[in-house]
Amino acid sequence: MGPAAGADFVRLFVQACTQQMRARGEPVRDQSFPEHWLAQVPVPDRTEALASAGQGAHQPLEPMLQALGRLAALGSRTVAIACNTAHAWHANLQERFPQVELLHMARETARHLAAQGATGVALMATEGTYRIRLYEQALADEGLECHVPLPEERQIITRGIFEGVKAGNMQLAEQCFSDVALRLAGRHGPVSIVMGCTEVPLGLQGSAAVAGLDLVDPAQVLAAALARRAYGVPQPH
Amino acid sequence: MGPAAGADFVRLFVQACTQQMRARGEPVRDQSFPEHWLAQVPVPDRTEALASAGQGAHQPLEPMLQALGRLAALGSRTVAIACNTAHAWHANLQERFPQVELLHMARETARHLAAQGATGVALMATEGTYRIRLYEQALADEGLECHVPLPEERQIITRGIFEGVKAGNMQLAEQCFSDVALRLAGRHGPVSIVMGCTEVPLGLQGSAAVAGLDLVDPAQVLAAALARRAYGVPQPH
Repeated sequence: MGPAAGADFVRLFVQACTQQMRARGEPVRDQSFPEHWLAQVPVPDRTEALASAGQGAHQPLEPMLQALGRLAALGSRTVAIACNTAHAWHANLQERFPQVELLHMARETARHLAAQGATGVALMATEGTYRIRLYEQALADEGLECHVPLPEERQIITRGIFEGVKAGNMQLAEQCFSDVALRLAGRHGPVSIVMGCTEVPLGLQGSAAVAGLDLVDPAQVLAAALARRAYGVPQPH
Repeated sequence: MGPAAGADFVRLFVQACTQQMRARGEPVRDQSFPEHWLAQVPVPDRTEALASAGQGAHQPLEPMLQALGRLAALGSRTVAIACNTAHAWHANLQERFPQVELLHMARETARHLAAQGATGVALMATEGTYRIRLYEQALADEGLECHVPLPEERQIITRGIFEGVKAGNMQLAEQCFSDVALRLAGRHGPVSIVMGCTEVPLGLQGSAAVAGLDLVDPAQVLAAALARRAYGVPQPH
């Protein structure tokens, strides 16, 4: 839901569509891509809302409901939200617009990891995503456990997200994210590290420091799931 | 209007918004980005339509009118089209939706070049864009001349666009585009080379072969113009 992550999600979706066409042996042409829309609307900070009592927690829902309503009115059949923390409101959004299939980023990622035969998983995310146990729950549903960083490591991730990517300081972001990724790998061994906030892959793109690690990008998994729906492929391939 | 170019345009717009906030001394936060929507709809090939007599030339207009109508219904005030050749229909689109300001990629680029004090300009574009003299006209309005490639060089550009970027073969694209860019620079000296098809910068991104050349990306100029409108800055800065 950071605007840079939203832009990157379109790139990942276009890439996933290209892969679909290739897998089907079809020529890749402009006209073979499905119609798709991106809505980027200002939404109050998700983690902040989840941390505040009562009223605050509902603030992000209103603009997301409005955007989803407009996407539904445009005729969208399937919608993906390119923000992990925003999935705190997934059930409310899906309930209000049952005519739209609203993909679930953590569940798609958990299914992807289970299909890949992952055994150990560690999670880099926002405080909000840890608070609602978004990935812990989705991974448990697939029989997978989830290692989470220590409190001070979470603070480093938060710094990389807000003072790094969201503020346009990519060098700081890379430093923060690679630091925590290496600590997780050092502590838990050869785990799949889920970059469970869409800002994290933006900060780690092309980072040499984490070259040997198994980094999983839920945005890429989500984009592939959306492309499968667009081309009528129901199951992961 | 190639889907990859559309995705890249959102990235350029988000980047241009970040620059606007920095120039104003404002903190860069998610919530400070303006609401923006991307519509990617299948549109028949623009160059092919412009080459065919009569009926054919109107084919791309219909889906573009529909998309623009839906963007207008969403409340869009300013719209940019991330495809140079599609500007053949700019006047028709603008006339039909006078409530929306439809930016003009070639005019924005010509104004940008004039403001930068450019003297010589060379153009890499689709056959359709050459055919309608989109840049020749816009540049002439700013008192600038425009060198165009030789027929065989145009064929190389076309190959890079369709068999390269649009088909997902980026290596071929880079080869084709850098070849023509170097020939233009060799023939015309230190000119500004306008990458007047949104697929060209995608193919030349990070190309070492053209590192010394003055490459101008109209998509970047257009994204900056759109960001200025969003932040209420009327004149180029």
